[in-house]
Amino acid sequence: MGMIKGNAVIGQSGGPTAVINQSLVGVIETLKDCKSIPKILGAKHGVRGIIEEEFIDLKKVSQATLDRVAETPAAALGSSRDKPDEAYCEKIFRVFEKNNVRYFFYIGGNDSADAARIVNEMAAAADYELRVFHIPKTIDNDLRVTDHTPGYGSAGRFVASAFAGDDRDSASLPGIKINIVMGRHAGWLTAASVLGKIDETSGPHLVYVPEIPFNVNQFVEDVRETYAKLGRCQIAVSEGVGDETHTPIAVNLAERLGHRVERDSHGNPQLSGSGALGDFLSDFLKSGLKEKYKTLRVRADTFGYLQRSFAGYASAVDQAEARQCGRKAAELAMAGDADGSIVMIRDKGPRYKISYQRADLKQVARLTKDLPRNFINKAGNGVTQAYVKYATPLVGELPQLGKLF
Amino acid sequence: MGMIKGNAVIGQSGGPTAVINQSLVGVIETLKDCKSIPKILGAKHGVRGIIEEEFIDLKKVSQATLDRVAETPAAALGSSRDKPDEAYCEKIFRVFEKNNVRYFFYIGGNDSADAARIVNEMAAAADYELRVFHIPKTIDNDLRVTDHTPGYGSAGRFVASAFAGDDRDSASLPGIKINIVMGRHAGWLTAASVLGKIDETSGPHLVYVPEIPFNVNQFVEDVRETYAKLGRCQIAVSEGVGDETHTPIAVNLAERLGHRVERDSHGNPQLSGSGALGDFLSDFLKSGLKEKYKTLRVRADTFGYLQRSFAGYASAVDQAEARQCGRKAAELAMAGDADGSIVMIRDKGPRYKISYQRADLKQVARLTKDLPRNFINKAGNGVTQAYVKYATPLVGELPQLGKLF
Repeated sequence: MGMIKGNAVIGQSGGPTAVINQSLVGVIETLKDCKSIPKILGAKHGVRGIIEEEFIDLKKVSQATLDRVAETPAAALGSSRDKPDEAYCEKIFRVFEKNNVRYFFYIGGNDSADAARIVNEMAAAADYELRVFHIPKTIDNDLRVTDHTPGYGSAGRFVASAFAGDDRDSASLPGIKINIVMGRHAGWLTAASVLGKIDETSGPHLVYVPEIPFNVNQFVEDVRETYAKLGRCQIAVSEGVGDETHTPIAVNLAERLGHRVERDSHGNPQLSGSGALGDFLSDFLKSGLKEKYKTLRVRADTFGYLQRSFAGYASAVDQAEARQCGRKAAELAMAGDADGSIVMIRDKGPRYKISYQRADLKQVARLTKDLPRNFINKAGNGVTQAYVKYATPLVGELPQLGKLF
Repeated sequence: MGMIKGNAVIGQSGGPTAVINQSLVGVIETLKDCKSIPKILGAKHGVRGIIEEEFIDLKKVSQATLDRVAETPAAALGSSRDKPDEAYCEKIFRVFEKNNVRYFFYIGGNDSADAARIVNEMAAAADYELRVFHIPKTIDNDLRVTDHTPGYGSAGRFVASAFAGDDRDSASLPGIKINIVMGRHAGWLTAASVLGKIDETSGPHLVYVPEIPFNVNQFVEDVRETYAKLGRCQIAVSEGVGDETHTPIAVNLAERLGHRVERDSHGNPQLSGSGALGDFLSDFLKSGLKEKYKTLRVRADTFGYLQRSFAGYASAVDQAEARQCGRKAAELAMAGDADGSIVMIRDKGPRYKISYQRADLKQVARLTKDLPRNFINKAGNGVTQAYVKYATPLVGELPQLGKLF
C-alpha cells in the first residue's frame, strides 16, 4: 500500500489552451515535496520529448516562474501531434524503465487519453508498475463523462466577449458580419458566442454548428430574413460546418480551389489558420443578396488561434478548475490509484459546484461528445436557454455592456 | 463673454474604437448640468443623423446606462463613413438653425476633423455663432499634433496580448505564424505587437509596416533566416503593406484574383474583413521554403475587427484619456473657445504625464502621421526600443507571462 518510489513524467499534447499550464502547475505543486518522487521530469513536446529524452527538471523551477507559467496560455512544455503506435510506445517504455519513471501524467484531449491508455496497457502487459493519469484539456469541450473540459471556459469567454464587442461595432456601421469560430466536429465553442448578448436584438442573430448539416442556400435565406427585420445581421459559424456527409465545407472549398488540404497525424484536416471559409461565405452572401441590397456591407473575421491563446483574459473559474484537475490527478496517483482520467461532475443543486473524480481511460479515450440537440434551436440556426444555463458559470465574469438605442 | 444659450449635438464618426464612448460620456457629463444648454442631442450615425434629424435626448439617459456605455466598445450613437460636401453641410446647418444648436462635438479621426472644419467655416461664413470641437479617436494613432490618439492604447493592448499568447502557442507547436494587423497607411498598431515580448527570443520576430515598401522575396529570406536560427518564426504584418507606389499588396492581390475592391466614401479600399492577405503570404512562404523544409507548419491569422472592438480588455490609461478628451472639449466650448481639436501633449519629464490642449482644426484635419523612421529598425523588419519606450505607457498593464525553456 506504500507509494511506489520512482520519477514522474509530465507531458502536454494536442492544441493548447489558455489554462493547460494551470494543470501542469497543479501536478508539479502537488508532487513537489514528495520524497518518493525524486524527479519530476517535464517532457518537451509531449511523447516526442519522452522518446528523445528531452526533459526539464521541474523540481528546479522557481515558484515565481511556476506562478507566471500558470497564467500563461499554451503548453509551456511544448505540445505534440504525434499519436504513439506500438513501436512508439515501446520506445516510451524503454525510457521509462531506464529512468525509473513510475508516474506519467498526460495533459491533453481525447487522442491524448488514448495515447495514455496504450502506454498504460503496455505497462500492465510488461508487468511494470506505473501510474498513468490523463488530465483533460480542450477548448472543444468534446470529452466524454466530464461535465465540461478545462480550456473551454476561457476560450468561451474570449468568444463571448469578441462577439459582444463586435456586435456593437457592427451596430455602429450596420451590415452583415460573419465570424468563424474554432470547432471541427462540435459546436460548443461557437455556441459560446451568445453568452455576452446584451438583449434580444443584439447579436449573434444566427449561429451555425457542425452538428446541423449546413445548407448554404438556407443560410442566405436566414440572413436575408434577419437583415430585413433588423437592418443588420451578426453570424457565428463553426469552422467545421459541413454537408450531410460531415465533410467540412472549408475542406470542400479548398479542394475545389485546388488547394491541398493539410492533415495532422490524427488525420484531422487543417481548418484554422486560414480565412478562406469566411471569405467564401461573405462572397456567397454578397452575390445572393446583391439584387435586393445594392450597397450591402459584408465582412468576415476568422477568430483563429486567439481563441485558445489570447493572454490575460482567461476565465477565473476555468483557471481554478484546470489547476484542481492537475492536483487531483497527482493526489490519486500518489494515493495508489493505478490509472484514469480526471472528470468534473457538476452538482445537481441550484448553485454551480464541481467535484473532481476519476474515470477509466477507455471511457474518455477516442470518443467525443457533440452539443446535445436540446442546446440547439429547432431551426438549427441558434442555441437555446438550456445551453446558456449550462455554459454561463464556465466563462466567468463577462463585461456588462450598454447601448443607447 | 457669457455662454451662448443653445443646444448641443454630439456625433461619432469613422471606424469605432474601444474607448470612443468614453469621450462621448466625457462630453455628456460635463455639459449635463449646464442651464445654458437645454438639450444634448446625440446624432445617430454621425452627420447622417444630423441631416435626418435622428437624435437621442442624452440628458434623459440614466447615469447607470452612461456608465455601462462608457465601458462598451464601438460607437453607441452609431457611426458613419459619410464625408460631407458643401450641399451636405448646408443641410447640417439648416438643422442646427432649426434646433438652435450652438455646440457641435464630433468624435472621429482626421476625416472627421475635416468635416468639423467644413461645418465650422460654413457657420462663420453665415455669421451663425457655433462652437465646434473635434475629439480625436482612432486605433491608427495617425493624427497630427497630439502625442497619441485615444483608441490606440486599447487596440495596442489587444494586439500586444494577442501576439504574446500566440507566440507561446506557436512555440508549443513550432512553425511559421503570420498575423495580419489593422493599419492601412501607418504601422502604429502593428508595432504594438512587440510590447508583450517575454524576452529576446520570443515573437514577434519580424514586423512589417506600410512605411517600408514590402518586398515579398525579401520577406521569404527574412523568415528563412529566423526559422533557421530559432526553429520557428512569428510575424506581424500590417494589412496595408504595399509596394513602392504605396498600393497595398492586399489590393493588388484582390485585383489579380478578379475581385472588385470595395472602397468607402473617402476612397479608402477595404482591407479588413477578409483573410486573403494572410492566406496569400502563407501560400507564398510555403512554396518559397518547401524545398528546404518539407513538412513546414505555416498558419496565418487576420486579427480583424476584434482589434478595435473586443469587449472587456481596454487599456485603463486609454479609457481615462479618452474620457478626459471629451471633458476638455466640453469645458473649452463652454468657456467660449470657438473651435478646435483636443490634443494630448506628453510631459518631457521621466514620468508619463499628459496635458490636454486645443489645436486648430486645420492642423489636425486630413493630414496623417506615419511611424517615424527611428521607431523602425534599419532592416525595415522590426521596431526599435525608442518605439517601445513611447508606446509602453499607452497600453496599460499587460499580462506577465512565463516560460520553461
